[in-house]
Amino acid sequence: MQRYFVPEDHFTEKRVTITGADSRHIQKVMRMKPSDSIICANNKGDAYLCEIEYVDEDQVHAAIKSRLTADPELPIDVTIAQGIPKADKFDAIIQKGTECGAAQFIPFQAERSVAVWKKDKKDKKKLRLEKIAKEAAEQSHRRFIPEIGDPMNLDQLITFSASFTIKMVAFEETAKAGAQAGFPTLLGKMGKGDQLLAVIGPEGGLTSEEARQLEAHGFILCGLGPRILRTETASVYLLSAISYHFELLNCEVGE
Amino acid sequence: MQRYFVPEDHFTEKRVTITGADSRHIQKVMRMKPSDSIICANNKGDAYLCEIEYVDEDQVHAAIKSRLTADPELPIDVTIAQGIPKADKFDAIIQKGTECGAAQFIPFQAERSVAVWKKDKKDKKKLRLEKIAKEAAEQSHRRFIPEIGDPMNLDQLITFSASFTIKMVAFEETAKAGAQAGFPTLLGKMGKGDQLLAVIGPEGGLTSEEARQLEAHGFILCGLGPRILRTETASVYLLSAISYHFELLNCEVGE
Repeated sequence: MQRYFVPEDHFTEKRVTITGADSRHIQKVMRMKPSDSIICANNKGDAYLCEIEYVDEDQVHAAIKSRLTADPELPIDVTIAQGIPKADKFDAIIQKGTECGAAQFIPFQAERSVAVWKKDKKDKKKLRLEKIAKEAAEQSHRRFIPEIGDPMNLDQLITFSASFTIKMVAFEETAKAGAQAGFPTLLGKMGKGDQLLAVIGPEGGLTSEEARQLEAHGFILCGLGPRILRTETASVYLLSAISYHFELLNCEVGE
Repeated sequence: MQRYFVPEDHFTEKRVTITGADSRHIQKVMRMKPSDSIICANNKGDAYLCEIEYVDEDQVHAAIKSRLTADPELPIDVTIAQGIPKADKFDAIIQKGTECGAAQFIPFQAERSVAVWKKDKKDKKKLRLEKIAKEAAEQSHRRFIPEIGDPMNLDQLITFSASFTIKMVAFEETAKAGAQAGFPTLLGKMGKGDQLLAVIGPEGGLTSEEARQLEAHGFILCGLGPRILRTETASVYLLSAISYHFELLNCEVGE
């Protein structure tokens, strides 16, 4: 069933009003009519089965039928600090990472990032990524749209990291050295609602100086298996492994 | 370090000769010279550190310095039977799936596959995917290039499945029903060298009739977490979870 994130103030106790691009999508693309069903989520963790009552030119009015109980959110909050990659790779990273349950993405201006987010284009890029995150969250039945943070350099990222339960770096050199137990050990220490910050390098990887500085500030260097992953694959691997660990293997998640 | 797959008959005991596109890549793109190092793999499981001795117009001649011992292959053989997706999504599926350790890909002509692999274009498509698999295997330091099988319909896929240790279907409806233990239980039954065949539907998913027929032939329906994954994300999730299970969590792999 089609899902839409709707601003919280468009909900009343029994009704929801859908406006703008989503209203056009319902009317023009999906060609839905009164009595058709949709799911509306408020981006605060609630999702409702709704039935369209009537449509007018730029709004869709629906009645709330029931609250959905399924919880498709990862038990831990995962923030991906992604070394800014080339070209439009960030689009795919946000789309796939949203499907796989990320809570937040931080564009990280790493030393080997070829692309630079210039100040005048920053807001436009962020808006584009937010749109991709919203659509991917709807498609994958998420309860929350992941947030896209402002771009950060290494110092800003280190300051930002202070509030996280666990901080890690996906580091290829650790993978090459054959140490693979770090990541599961770290997940074993986490419980429901804990926050993980994971740094992933850009195409050329992190420099050893960046890795050293992060390690000096409490980040744990972890390998993600013995194969060398592209930057856009690392976040999907990481999130899939977290999902497998907590949601499928059903490892104990403390309260 | 740059890696190349070289046909086995281009190796002698102490030397290797690189020809064709890889020779041009070494000379024109990488601009390598005598005494530069490369890694050459024979696609039979062996990889060697080599030193370029001399180059001529269309060949690179290198001396074998040592055999590499690291094994970046998944302990189980995973074949992905991928419901043929739209447009160029198959390219990304092969690229990412190769990075994540797949042994083989079968294009599966599912009922909801919008694209059809026509007979006259089949070989061209397969050649293209084989090239992507080779490059991704080199980039990710694999020892083997995954094979691209001929496209199969449901009946052919069922016949083909007879030789596999375990057969599974990534099935969204199972995920929605909340049963998540199936996949780890199935991995728990597998040991080193076992062969897993995993069927993934195209964009619209598998029909319930396809799922029923596969189940009737010994395929186990498994959910891949509570979020709805796009067809191109499912294989990466699956392979990442397998890597996490066997390579990182270091679960016992029987001999």
